[in-house]
Amino acid sequence: MRIARFSAGDEVGFGLVDTDDGGNRFVSRLKGHPLLGQIQLTGERAKLEDVRLLSPVLPTKVVCIGKNYAEHVAEMADITGGSTAEPVVFLKPSSAVVGPNDPVFYPALSSRVDYEGELAVVIGRLCREVPAERVKDVVFGYTVGNDVTARDLQQTDKQWTRAKGFDSFCPLGPWIETGLSLEEAADLRITTTVDGEVRQDASTAQMIHGIPELVAYVSSFMTLLPGDVILTGTPAGVGPVEVGQHMTVAVERIGELTNRVVTRD
Amino acid sequence: MRIARFSAGDEVGFGLVDTDDGGNRFVSRLKGHPLLGQIQLTGERAKLEDVRLLSPVLPTKVVCIGKNYAEHVAEMADITGGSTAEPVVFLKPSSAVVGPNDPVFYPALSSRVDYEGELAVVIGRLCREVPAERVKDVVFGYTVGNDVTARDLQQTDKQWTRAKGFDSFCPLGPWIETGLSLEEAADLRITTTVDGEVRQDASTAQMIHGIPELVAYVSSFMTLLPGDVILTGTPAGVGPVEVGQHMTVAVERIGELTNRVVTRD
Repeated sequence: MRIARFSAGDEVGFGLVDTDDGGNRFVSRLKGHPLLGQIQLTGERAKLEDVRLLSPVLPTKVVCIGKNYAEHVAEMADITGGSTAEPVVFLKPSSAVVGPNDPVFYPALSSRVDYEGELAVVIGRLCREVPAERVKDVVFGYTVGNDVTARDLQQTDKQWTRAKGFDSFCPLGPWIETGLSLEEAADLRITTTVDGEVRQDASTAQMIHGIPELVAYVSSFMTLLPGDVILTGTPAGVGPVEVGQHMTVAVERIGELTNRVVTRD
Repeated sequence: MRIARFSAGDEVGFGLVDTDDGGNRFVSRLKGHPLLGQIQLTGERAKLEDVRLLSPVLPTKVVCIGKNYAEHVAEMADITGGSTAEPVVFLKPSSAVVGPNDPVFYPALSSRVDYEGELAVVIGRLCREVPAERVKDVVFGYTVGNDVTARDLQQTDKQWTRAKGFDSFCPLGPWIETGLSLEEAADLRITTTVDGEVRQDASTAQMIHGIPELVAYVSSFMTLLPGDVILTGTPAGVGPVEVGQHMTVAVERIGELTNRVVTRD
């Protein structure tokens, strides 16, 4: 199932996304919140192009993993100091979250902003100290994320909060894919393109710490809530974007997340 | 005004705290949420000791400032690398927030947990890029915070998210004092005692970056929402607590925040 959050007219809600035999995509409106009860259709249906997709969740926290692909650790060694035995964990504020096609604002404080395409895990249940073998019970689904980073500020600030916490620096979407097993999620192609040019092209199979290990690790020190998001780290190939460019992160079997870089007036 | 959040029986709500001529403290229940409209009394009133105080806010984010008192920067130079021109900013997850008298859980992962008493600023309005001279318009009030830290993990992890993000590592309370001007908040005695023994004793006048500067700085890169909390840094004198000990952070004219350190069963 693909669950999107969308607005149409004045209404915001959740819907199931599906495709008909002719390749047309539709969104069928759901009652209530899919993370807080059984999924029920309202009977309302619209063409996908007639609605505006929003970030598929409004997380209480976005927990990010750094240095989780060996080639990326190597390319970033000057800034982040090489590999570490345990996952590097940092937070993005929920105020940074935006949806598909939303603008990403290039901060006046930075002169080097990078894309970082990532697989995002959406948590479905309140949970704490989840053993790796039970992680499948707490994952609601997967979406696509872009851990946008002001690389120059990451280099000067010791903590990464500012460099990674600007408003709009956490695009998520286009929807949550709930139909993948942990094993399937562990071998998906992930690519990032800038204005159509491929910059990152990897597989989630290259993660140093896999999804069960990451969820177990994070939940060993903080309670996770329904809708919380874990960004699983970015592969090699990070690099700058300029104002006016489009970043597209695509994860196989999930979808594509495109955002344009703009300046704030 | 002192605004508390409390539970009594099955009900959770907000109330005004006041003291009668005999020194007895009461809480008068409010209608709705004090951050989202005008304050209205319901007419219900209870003795303060008959209710359970909760964290006075449920912030979407807790933004913490590091290295904001010169003597503390000096005592921590080995771990945090000495002074920096700009404030150090990090986040605690909202899942770490607890209220007055709630237990603080000593994590099995750590063998050195420290108190850090701090003045906490509660934001009253959605705001972004607030100039220092307009910060008074966005501050709702002040409460007391304890930036509990697993010092050993702070030393080994590059990012401080885990060391400062455990469940229960962000006690806030006992209430929000809304009657202090920025000038008054800039000269308050702050003390931390452990089982009655004074460990930190300073004045908010010793902050390197004052409240207007901190709110302006943080809001320069992230939108702040009503109820968001900025912890303004801890003075010198940080040190360890052991299971069974009581930490009390007191800020003059605001109140006292006491939490006991326990192990999770």
